[in-house]
Amino acid sequence: MPYYIGDVVKDHKLLIARTPEKFKSAGIEIRLSTEVHSIDYPQHYVECSGNERIPFDILVLALGAEAVVPGIEGIRKPGVFFLRNLEDAIAIKGWLREKKIEKVVILGAGFIGLEMAEALKMAGIQVTILHKAKWPANRWDEELSSFMHEILVARGVEFVPEVEVKEIDDGERGLLVKTDKGNWEAGLVLVATGVRPDVRLARSVGAALGRSGAIAVNFNQKTSLDDVYAVGDCAEVFHRVSKKWVNFPLGDIANKQGRVAGRNIGGRPMVFEGVVGAQSFRLFELECAATGLSEKEAVDAGYNPVSTIIWGSATAPSMGRKRLGLKLIADKSTGRILGAQAVGLEGAVSRINVLSVALFAEMNLDQIGYLDLAYAPPFGPAWDIVHVAAQTLKRMI
Amino acid sequence: MPYYIGDVVKDHKLLIARTPEKFKSAGIEIRLSTEVHSIDYPQHYVECSGNERIPFDILVLALGAEAVVPGIEGIRKPGVFFLRNLEDAIAIKGWLREKKIEKVVILGAGFIGLEMAEALKMAGIQVTILHKAKWPANRWDEELSSFMHEILVARGVEFVPEVEVKEIDDGERGLLVKTDKGNWEAGLVLVATGVRPDVRLARSVGAALGRSGAIAVNFNQKTSLDDVYAVGDCAEVFHRVSKKWVNFPLGDIANKQGRVAGRNIGGRPMVFEGVVGAQSFRLFELECAATGLSEKEAVDAGYNPVSTIIWGSATAPSMGRKRLGLKLIADKSTGRILGAQAVGLEGAVSRINVLSVALFAEMNLDQIGYLDLAYAPPFGPAWDIVHVAAQTLKRMI
Repeated sequence: MPYYIGDVVKDHKLLIARTPEKFKSAGIEIRLSTEVHSIDYPQHYVECSGNERIPFDILVLALGAEAVVPGIEGIRKPGVFFLRNLEDAIAIKGWLREKKIEKVVILGAGFIGLEMAEALKMAGIQVTILHKAKWPANRWDEELSSFMHEILVARGVEFVPEVEVKEIDDGERGLLVKTDKGNWEAGLVLVATGVRPDVRLARSVGAALGRSGAIAVNFNQKTSLDDVYAVGDCAEVFHRVSKKWVNFPLGDIANKQGRVAGRNIGGRPMVFEGVVGAQSFRLFELECAATGLSEKEAVDAGYNPVSTIIWGSATAPSMGRKRLGLKLIADKSTGRILGAQAVGLEGAVSRINVLSVALFAEMNLDQIGYLDLAYAPPFGPAWDIVHVAAQTLKRMI
Repeated sequence: MPYYIGDVVKDHKLLIARTPEKFKSAGIEIRLSTEVHSIDYPQHYVECSGNERIPFDILVLALGAEAVVPGIEGIRKPGVFFLRNLEDAIAIKGWLREKKIEKVVILGAGFIGLEMAEALKMAGIQVTILHKAKWPANRWDEELSSFMHEILVARGVEFVPEVEVKEIDDGERGLLVKTDKGNWEAGLVLVATGVRPDVRLARSVGAALGRSGAIAVNFNQKTSLDDVYAVGDCAEVFHRVSKKWVNFPLGDIANKQGRVAGRNIGGRPMVFEGVVGAQSFRLFELECAATGLSEKEAVDAGYNPVSTIIWGSATAPSMGRKRLGLKLIADKSTGRILGAQAVGLEGAVSRINVLSVALFAEMNLDQIGYLDLAYAPPFGPAWDIVHVAAQTLKRMI
């Protein structure tokens, strides 16, 4: 009988609490609030809170990631929150409600910080984002992230670029965030400066880590240790474009890895062919999406990238314009697509999904430039922005 | 200097009239309202209205399609309109306005008839659709077209299934459509019962026709005659799934063929790798889209199809449900995808586009079941309906 332990269970506590019977009837025991202190790999058991020992035939490590804690004085003060799991979400909501918070400072403008800015602003709270770089969402090209910036500002979010946070002190509203560009009062500070794989237990039993720092796995999700699998944010995943094993802590990838491990453990073996780096988030009325490699990553992976940015519309001109920008990156030597980024009032995610399949299948610019897509004016022009970008880029090679 | 003649010019008259200088400066002469009576292929000239002869080195046939005229008495009465070109659209609009038409009968519930029903209804006109079959849009599975039917009826369009039109007579509102299920008064009757390729000129010069009845072309858009190309609705196109040459009269395919012919004529040769049959239309709040082969077409093409229909949502449950149905068809022997159909309040077109690329790349169900798509709750669940359908179908094989 398999046991599921660790953070994955903690994150899904509410869901699981609602369906214990479903698990039970499938012969699966769920232990909530059960922390695993150590693993005895030679003896094949884990040791939990209360020194209870639970034996295993197969062990699945689904340990997730932990928030990166910036080395800032005061970062552990009450009112400073990290974004990691359900408990964090409940604690943040409680603090906002109980303290009647009117002003939040967010550290970091990655996609998680931006999603939080939207959610808080929609709840009527003033938001300031303090960001190390010049533009939000550094995965996207400046020309596209400046579109995000435009929407952020139009919606009343204060965005402070190129700022270094020095200290979090007590302040009039509760906290005072001190930076090299001035001080900001806040009732709550959200730290969204990234995550890293939680590999402590894996390292303790000698499971090999990959170059990314996450747990190394094979195409079946098996680690370097027999009978031990790893899935989700704590594990590496094969990137089909860079051909490297990377750590890509996204929920849909974790889901896939879990099922792949399950199939292999359960006797219906399968290979996980890997990811292409597809990702999206919403920012108010904007769709933001990306896939594949950036130009820098492409160079690092040994390619010779060339790129173009096309501005167009997600619908045919007769249906009114819906501004949409698409950056396409291809390899100069082979004409093969390497990556894409899109930001638009509509249609960004659907274009990135089309290009994600094209990346999976290693298609070239001539194929993408003449792809058969389901054309109708409400959903795009006869020459979609995907076609235009591919043909434009092809002419540059 | 190339000349562009025939229906393609007629259709785009307004557009072209607005940009004559652009064409002129590119060295292209456009002759509007110039009908080509005959082609002298051995002497390489076409004969136009006024017996003018225009010589050619290369001839491009872009003759389009003609409306199928059902053998119904009264089908040529004033007030009965076909849907073919810009003149038809102008005449229909004029008739609606001048006669203050309140009631329109549409013959045929293909996607063109349905799009017209939406447009007329939105303009405040009563609409009745008379349709031969039981459900609208026969390319889609009954379970999906019954969703279309639900929306049609909810929006107040009268849909009469399994009806045979006997005669169009004079009536109180102008016209009386007599059928085996009763009579319908109408101020205007729209015939939307399909089109067929216009191959008269091609046949007159001995260009080979394909099995579909359209002009046979190669992967460069060249016909069986040297120096003669054919593009658009009058020509065949290679279907990458059935591996057959077919006639698929859609605007985006015509655009692609035109550009492929242009590249080959202009000295930058390219191959058109063909289509997968992607298509979409909007019906009020519904997105309707399809790609690849239906089960019947799959059998005809020599496959062993198996299919499933999944009902889900275009967004994650936390974002509110947007009902979306997806039918997926695959080959039992190889597990390769053969076709898909989708109807939904959101997200149908984007799923069909993803699956169109998968069809282009000949992907199998295991690959599609674990495809890396840009996941975020506003745009879909972590396991997208595409994944669920592919995994479900895989279990059935």
